Amino acid sequence: MPERLGEFDLIRRYFAADAPRHPHNKLGIGDDCALMSLPPGQHLAITADTMVENVHFFADAAPEDLGHKLLAVNLSDLAAMGAEPFAVTLALTLPKVEPTWLEAFSRGFLTLARRFNVDLIGGDTTSGPLTLTVQAMGTVPSGAALTRSAANVGDFVYLSGPVGDAGLGLKIKQGYRCSFPEIPLRCFHRPEPRVELGLALRGIAHACIDISDGLAADLGHILTQSRVGACLDWAALAFSDAMDAYLAESGDWRLPLTAGDDYQLCFTVPPDRSAAIPAGCRKIGVIEVESGLRLRRAGSIELLEFTGYEHFL
Amino acid sequence: MPERLGEFDLIRRYFAADAPRHPHNKLGIGDDCALMSLPPGQHLAITADTMVENVHFFADAAPEDLGHKLLAVNLSDLAAMGAEPFAVTLALTLPKVEPTWLEAFSRGFLTLARRFNVDLIGGDTTSGPLTLTVQAMGTVPSGAALTRSAANVGDFVYLSGPVGDAGLGLKIKQGYRCSFPEIPLRCFHRPEPRVELGLALRGIAHACIDISDGLAADLGHILTQSRVGACLDWAALAFSDAMDAYLAESGDWRLPLTAGDDYQLCFTVPPDRSAAIPAGCRKIGVIEVESGLRLRRAGSIELLEFTGYEHFL
Repeated sequence: MPERLGEFDLIRRYFAADAPRHPHNKLGIGDDCALMSLPPGQHLAITADTMVENVHFFADAAPEDLGHKLLAVNLSDLAAMGAEPFAVTLALTLPKVEPTWLEAFSRGFLTLARRFNVDLIGGDTTSGPLTLTVQAMGTVPSGAALTRSAANVGDFVYLSGPVGDAGLGLKIKQGYRCSFPEIPLRCFHRPEPRVELGLALRGIAHACIDISDGLAADLGHILTQSRVGACLDWAALAFSDAMDAYLAESGDWRLPLTAGDDYQLCFTVPPDRSAAIPAGCRKIGVIEVESGLRLRRAGSIELLEFTGYEHFL
Repeated sequence: MPERLGEFDLIRRYFAADAPRHPHNKLGIGDDCALMSLPPGQHLAITADTMVENVHFFADAAPEDLGHKLLAVNLSDLAAMGAEPFAVTLALTLPKVEPTWLEAFSRGFLTLARRFNVDLIGGDTTSGPLTLTVQAMGTVPSGAALTRSAANVGDFVYLSGPVGDAGLGLKIKQGYRCSFPEIPLRCFHRPEPRVELGLALRGIAHACIDISDGLAADLGHILTQSRVGACLDWAALAFSDAMDAYLAESGDWRLPLTAGDDYQLCFTVPPDRSAAIPAGCRKIGVIEVESGLRLRRAGSIELLEFTGYEHFL
């Protein structure tokens, strides 16, 4: 039986066992506000992402995965900016208090938080339809942030790993039979934010973005905000064995370019710095003067739309 | 007819017409993160509050009021910390895109934001049941924050204005007939965050809190976290004409002590600083060694529970 827990007890029991550990965090949960300081020369990078039941996750999603993913997608935005995370707030709207659910959710959330030395410093707990909002905060040296508007003509376009696996994971959840479902399902349920990579790209990359809305849509944001275009090389894209099998079977080559929920980083680098790119990243194209996103594939070039996942469409 | 607006167009059209104006805000909406800087010697104060349809507001709430109130309740938490607001993020979960609703909501939100020189620097827009989360950020000089744990025995307890009007406003919404409904309804729909007062209390007040969960509950937080007690004087409380009439008619003297959604500040001040208290604030009691909250009323003293509004109870 759920116990009759007040809001304050609830927060305390599942989320606020410890005082903040990171030295930037001066006051955590329990007052009207949390307090933090910034070292000299550092900017604060801030991002917020919401996940809604039956929109961003299925009602049967494992709460531990959900806690992990909710934090991961926010840390990924910090990574895409080259920022080092240290604090998050959590706004939790819950239909009811279910200790088993909360225990698993907080375990998934806090395990990832501890791995990146991130403190949960505040938030709100309310009753209502299951809706989860995290705001994540990190530091980046003044002037060192990797913005979407910083791509230059002639930059090489890189991608930090295989593309499309989360989209394939969603297809598997929806009934597609795959012989190698582990990686796609893991990408879908337990995405890994590329925090260390984002930090390693400071001073190397020009523009950077995570591909949470899909490669074409998110690279499209870089192109639009940098007022440039790009040409990608299909043969340079990395795919998992599962994606190779899916592509061979379905011919659906648009999936890895448009499926969302991937958390690799896509970034642009001037050619003379390309030797410094961390291992595992692949050069997949080049930034060009001509606007638009082009794909070289099977001997021809075609124009891609900046299409990805959008709400309300 | 609602237009088919993408998430990005939606945010841009209603909320992000302008680049950030406050000098602390270096990058606003449109990238993976927003960026801000802090002046030397300042801490960042952060708070997050969520409002859910049919829990925190009625489905027929005027969207302009809702936009105002959502921001006001967050600015109130900064005020209670003695912090000066400069930035907010907004996580907006909407069942559908209704331009008329969004236009009014953003007008209420942004009008209040501009009044306090606060920039909307980021957030998220998702589809789902109407749920609104704001995170507000402000600066407070290192060591100057007004925390809940700073009350000392012998401090006077102050309240910044009349108490209970929002609770009475709710009763009016629910059918109670009141001869002077304007002030209670205004307090309920359009609460005023006491930002300037919070700033004026730096260096004067010890502990401070806003009474959004009700006077007894929120003063209870100060008492618990400061490990002290208090005795309040009923005769010292200020009431609106509407509340006076309600009390005379109903005898329900607990309402103003327990009703939530009020945004006056309750704070404690050492007696030798009481001459510096801004006008309009009333001394309503004193901090004592003995734990618990007592009320002197009609010639006797009774113990009050720290009862207010809690979710899930």
